[in-house]
Amino acid sequence: MNINVLGVGTTKFGELWDVSPRTLIREAYENALTESGLDPNTLDGIFVGNMLSGILGNQENMGAFVSESIGLTGKAAVKVEGACASGGLAVHQGVLSILSGQYQAVLVVGIEKMTDHKPEEVAGALMGAGSDEERSAGLTFPGLYSLMARVHMQQYKTTEEDMAAVSVKNHYHASFNSKAQFRKEISIEDVLKSPCISDPLKLLDCSPISDGASAIILSRSGLTRKSHDTSVSIIASSASSDSLGLCGRSSLTSLSATKTAAGLAYQQAKLQPKDIDIAEVHDCFSIAEIMALEDLGFYEKGRAGSAIGSGDVTLGSSKKLVVNTSGGLKACGHPVGATGVKQVVEVVEQLRGTVGKRQLKNARIGLTHNVGGSGAVAAVHILENNQ
Amino acid sequence: MNINVLGVGTTKFGELWDVSPRTLIREAYENALTESGLDPNTLDGIFVGNMLSGILGNQENMGAFVSESIGLTGKAAVKVEGACASGGLAVHQGVLSILSGQYQAVLVVGIEKMTDHKPEEVAGALMGAGSDEERSAGLTFPGLYSLMARVHMQQYKTTEEDMAAVSVKNHYHASFNSKAQFRKEISIEDVLKSPCISDPLKLLDCSPISDGASAIILSRSGLTRKSHDTSVSIIASSASSDSLGLCGRSSLTSLSATKTAAGLAYQQAKLQPKDIDIAEVHDCFSIAEIMALEDLGFYEKGRAGSAIGSGDVTLGSSKKLVVNTSGGLKACGHPVGATGVKQVVEVVEQLRGTVGKRQLKNARIGLTHNVGGSGAVAAVHILENNQ
Repeated sequence: MNINVLGVGTTKFGELWDVSPRTLIREAYENALTESGLDPNTLDGIFVGNMLSGILGNQENMGAFVSESIGLTGKAAVKVEGACASGGLAVHQGVLSILSGQYQAVLVVGIEKMTDHKPEEVAGALMGAGSDEERSAGLTFPGLYSLMARVHMQQYKTTEEDMAAVSVKNHYHASFNSKAQFRKEISIEDVLKSPCISDPLKLLDCSPISDGASAIILSRSGLTRKSHDTSVSIIASSASSDSLGLCGRSSLTSLSATKTAAGLAYQQAKLQPKDIDIAEVHDCFSIAEIMALEDLGFYEKGRAGSAIGSGDVTLGSSKKLVVNTSGGLKACGHPVGATGVKQVVEVVEQLRGTVGKRQLKNARIGLTHNVGGSGAVAAVHILENNQ
Repeated sequence: MNINVLGVGTTKFGELWDVSPRTLIREAYENALTESGLDPNTLDGIFVGNMLSGILGNQENMGAFVSESIGLTGKAAVKVEGACASGGLAVHQGVLSILSGQYQAVLVVGIEKMTDHKPEEVAGALMGAGSDEERSAGLTFPGLYSLMARVHMQQYKTTEEDMAAVSVKNHYHASFNSKAQFRKEISIEDVLKSPCISDPLKLLDCSPISDGASAIILSRSGLTRKSHDTSVSIIASSASSDSLGLCGRSSLTSLSATKTAAGLAYQQAKLQPKDIDIAEVHDCFSIAEIMALEDLGFYEKGRAGSAIGSGDVTLGSSKKLVVNTSGGLKACGHPVGATGVKQVVEVVEQLRGTVGKRQLKNARIGLTHNVGGSGAVAAVHILENNQ
C-alpha cells in the first residue's frame, strides 16, 4: 500500500466559542489544499469524521455540510462515524476509496464542535458510544476507563504515578505545539492532587472537551506533491471492532480491537513494533495510553506504565519511540471527530521534519492509533517518509 | 466493476413497536448470511447505513452496535451516514472496500427505528439532513419538496394527478410485497382527497415513518454464491453531492447530485438509461420519483409525470422499464438508513427472479437510486444478472 499524503492542515484545538464549524472546516481544508498544490476539482471524494453533530447540533448529512462549506459540491461526500475513532475510520475509508481505483484524490476532514454545549449534555452525548446497559447503569466514559485502570493496577502493579506521568509527558509535548489546547506544563503532583473524577482517574488524567478540525488530502502514488521536498505515504490502514460494552470483553486490561487492527497494519506494512519511530496514540484517559503502548506491541503487558514514568517515550529520550508529540488527546485536545485525522497530520509533519521545537530527529516511520468508545472500534495507520 | 452479491435479507418494514433494533439487524443479517453460504468469519468488514440512532436514541458507534448484535466482533465496523442516502452510501463504501483489495467479503446493513418516537421528534430529527437556514425558517422536508413540486408544476405542467399516480402505482406494487408497510391499493382520488401536508403535497404523496433493517453480503468475483443458480453483481457504484439547502442549487426541478452520480454509474457500467429494466428510485415524496426518472435519464425533463400517469413504469406495462416494484419508499416504507440497502435487495431478488407475483419478466439490468436530504447527496448502483 502506498497512498501519498499530499497536504495536511489543522486548526487550533480548544474552546473556540467564536468560531463556527464551517470556519473550522475551511481553515483545515484550505491549508491542506494549498500544501497539496491540487486543483480542488481533482478531488473525487470527501470523507468526514464526526460523531456528535447530530446529537448536539441536530446536524447530520455532514458529508454535504463539508462539501457545501468548502464550496466543492458535485463530489461523493459521506460522514463516517465510529464514536471517538470517527476521524481514523474516515482516513481508513479515504484510503480504501483510493485503493479501489475509483477515486484519484480525496479529502478527509475531521470536525467536532463540543464546547458550545453544557458539559453534562456533552457527557451524555458521548455515552452514545457506549452500550445500553452501561448507560442504564449510569456509567460514563471516565467510569468505564477507571474500571479498566483499577484492574490494570491490580494485575500489573501499575500506579497512579505511572498514569500521571502520561499526562505530564503529553502536557510537556503540547508546550511546544501552538495548536494545542493546553500548553502549560504540569507535574506528577498536580495530577495526583487534581479533583477525583472517577477513582482512580483524576481530572488531569482525562482528556478535555474541545473544538477543532483537521484535514488531509490523499492521492494515488502517481499524483505527487510538487511543492515540498519530503513526501510521506500511508503504507498501512486497518480497523477492527469489539463489543460495545465492557461486559462482552475477554480482557479489561487490553483492547482487542487495537490488537487486531495493529496486527493487520504491521502485516500490511511488513513492519514490527520496533520499527516505529513515532506514534500518536489514543490517550483519552492516561490509562488508555498505557494500554495502547502494550496492545500496539511496543511494551509487554504491564510494562508500559513504568516505561512512560521513566521518560522512555518523551521527546529527548535516548530510546527510539516517542509517543504523542502533539500533546495527545490529553493536552492537544480531543474534538472527537477531528482526533484521528489530527494524529495523521502530526505524524506527517514530524516525518517531514517541520514541527520546530517538538521535532523528533531522524523519524522515518510513524503510527497512529484511534479508538472509539471504550475500545469498541479502533483504527491504525502506519506512515513512512519516502526519502 | 464486478462485485458479487452473495446474499440479501430484509425485515418487514412498518411500525414494528415490539421489535428491537438488534432483532431487526439479526433477522436481515441471518437471511443474507444463509443465502451467501459463507462462514461469518470470512467477512472482513461491516458497513452500517443509519441516520437517526444518535439523535433519536443517543446510540452512535452503530458499526460496533451491529458487530456486537450479530456476534461478529474483531472485524472493521463503521457507520456511514448521509441522511436518507445512508444505506446507499454504505453499499458504496462496501463496494469500494472490496475493490480496494483489502477486504474479501463484507456485510452492509441498513437499519432505522423511527416509530418509537413522537412524530414531531422524528420530523425534527430528519431536518438534521437540511441546512441551518432552512431549519431556522421553519421548513420541513415536505415543505422543501413542495417548493420543488410547485416549480415543477409551473415549468412543466406537471399536475397533482401525475404526482398522485406515483403513489397509486407504488401502493399497487406493494400489494404484492409481504415485506411492505402498506399493502392496500389506493386511487388517484384517495391521494387528492387526503389531507394537505404542504401544498401541493398531500398525505398520500408522502412516504411514511418506518422501522426496518436490510442487509447484503458482497464479495470479490472469485468468491461466488454456491447455493443458488442465479448470481447477481454490482457493476457500477457511485455517489455525489450538492448544497445542503435549496438556496444553493442551480435548479429546483432537478437534483444535480442524482445527475452526476447517474452519469458516473452509466459510464462505469458502459450502459445507457435505455438499458435499464428495473429501477428502485427515491420516492420520499411523489414529486421526487418524477424528478428521479428525469434526472436518471429515463425521460426528458417534464415528461416523467405524464408517463407515470399513463402506467408506463407500472408492473404489466408494455414498456421496458418498471419502477419501484417493492412499493418504493411510499408504500414499502422508509426506515431511512435501511432504504438504500433494501433497494439493492429488491433489485437483486428481481434479477434472480424470486419475487413471485411482483416479478418482472426477463429483467437483466437494474438500477438503485438513493437520495439524502432534499438532494444534498445521492448514491446510484447498477446491477446485472450474470446469466
